[in-house]
Amino acid sequence: VWIGDDTAVVTAPGGGRLLLCADAVVAGVHADLTLTTLSDFGWKAVVANVSDVAAMGGRPLHVLVTVASPPGTDVDLLYDGIASACDAYACPVVGGDLVSAASLVVTVAMTGSVDGPAVRRAGARPGDVIWVTGPLGAAAAGLRAWRTGTDHAELRRAHARPQAALAEGTAARLAGATAMIDVSDGFAADLGHLADASGVGFELDDLPVAAGATEEEARRGGDDYVLVFCAPQEAPVAERFAGLPSPLRIGRCVEDPAARTIRGAPLQPEGWEHPFSGRP
Amino acid sequence: VWIGDDTAVVTAPGGGRLLLCADAVVAGVHADLTLTTLSDFGWKAVVANVSDVAAMGGRPLHVLVTVASPPGTDVDLLYDGIASACDAYACPVVGGDLVSAASLVVTVAMTGSVDGPAVRRAGARPGDVIWVTGPLGAAAAGLRAWRTGTDHAELRRAHARPQAALAEGTAARLAGATAMIDVSDGFAADLGHLADASGVGFELDDLPVAAGATEEEARRGGDDYVLVFCAPQEAPVAERFAGLPSPLRIGRCVEDPAARTIRGAPLQPEGWEHPFSGRP
Repeated sequence: VWIGDDTAVVTAPGGGRLLLCADAVVAGVHADLTLTTLSDFGWKAVVANVSDVAAMGGRPLHVLVTVASPPGTDVDLLYDGIASACDAYACPVVGGDLVSAASLVVTVAMTGSVDGPAVRRAGARPGDVIWVTGPLGAAAAGLRAWRTGTDHAELRRAHARPQAALAEGTAARLAGATAMIDVSDGFAADLGHLADASGVGFELDDLPVAAGATEEEARRGGDDYVLVFCAPQEAPVAERFAGLPSPLRIGRCVEDPAARTIRGAPLQPEGWEHPFSGRP
Repeated sequence: VWIGDDTAVVTAPGGGRLLLCADAVVAGVHADLTLTTLSDFGWKAVVANVSDVAAMGGRPLHVLVTVASPPGTDVDLLYDGIASACDAYACPVVGGDLVSAASLVVTVAMTGSVDGPAVRRAGARPGDVIWVTGPLGAAAAGLRAWRTGTDHAELRRAHARPQAALAEGTAARLAGATAMIDVSDGFAADLGHLADASGVGFELDDLPVAAGATEEEARRGGDDYVLVFCAPQEAPVAERFAGLPSPLRIGRCVEDPAARTIRGAPLQPEGWEHPFSGRP
């Protein structure tokens, strides 16, 4: 339904540049609450939005939280996770709503700011280098660890308490990123969205796979919240990422929008099926 | 969970004054979709927020719409109503989310602006006159008309397509309103919220009842979106409402917070039970 970026850039009262985004998470669709907690669920609802703001090179400012919940939901536990994430990313909850419903739906709307033009999905040019801010697939591998009872704390945490790459998004913007997106639907799908919006193709040499994850999880796993960005070859990426985990150069943009390959083979754009969804 | 006003006043990037609010409407709780349409439901989700902004003396700017819907929901019809309301109140939809869920939950988050200090629930002083921007109870009477099959188009419309008192809210602010609230939970409940926040009591002489509504519907019916405001006796209310329906003077604020009467009898604060809610 919504075309383009997950985050809107609008003019605030007083003339400033305001970022706006909203995401909903649904119990049973975006999280299996028999595996992870309501607190984790609340955390994720906030972080999904922080990541959208990060992907514009911005920072979050304010949060509105709306909870639709069945009777008996431990709303306090849910709000604990929401509050932890809002503390972690310095974006206070300023309002919201609490209503009764048959399913648990948590909607987070967020404002943000950006000190300069926001980076969008559109803007990558042929010849730009494609970067990722970290290895991929940890969240999907973490879900597998929860499901199979595998004792891998770091992967489990990557699924239950994902982190938004806030500092990395700002560093990419300052380095001159021409386009950026966060990996929420899955790397292949999200890079596809960026390429569609920019009207370019891509040739990838490699894809960094998180320790413990499979190549498939890295390509298609959702909710990693790693950022993918494009920048001219001469962009001062290393310099702007000083003090942060080094981003990884994975390929380049090409002129032909139909050319979308990894190591010479087509990269299928299919994304992550949210594993708890009843949808086909 | 949320204390105080339905709308937050925050500082926007660039230093401007930004209003933020969010409300959710749930099918079967806030509307009976066997009576009214999905388009009406979408309209109401927007108007509930416009009314929150109006109650601060502000005007809406941007809308984020998040829809959680069961498979088979006519989302186009829902968005038609949302778009109609956003057109009517000049606040474009700039983003949102669409997810799958077992129940239909529509969450609207809204930004707004106000050209001066916002009017809040707190601020009324003993001796202030209490005003309403119109007669009460039309929405509740309208619901009754839908339920009983009574052919009363105006009341039906008051329930299906309520209007936010946007121009009235600005007029009240410019007239020097000291406190304001919109009637969403019901007049008695909402005036109670205002009195609680302001630390005052009230003596009401009368309550204007909408044509076709009962006294009880006027006192307790929800979702009228009429504004209740307080202003000093000398405030230029009539002058500021020139060209708008005349507001009605219904009583005055008094010092004793426990004194809450209408024609000398206690006004019970109980609000509107959303009539479709499964809650006791």
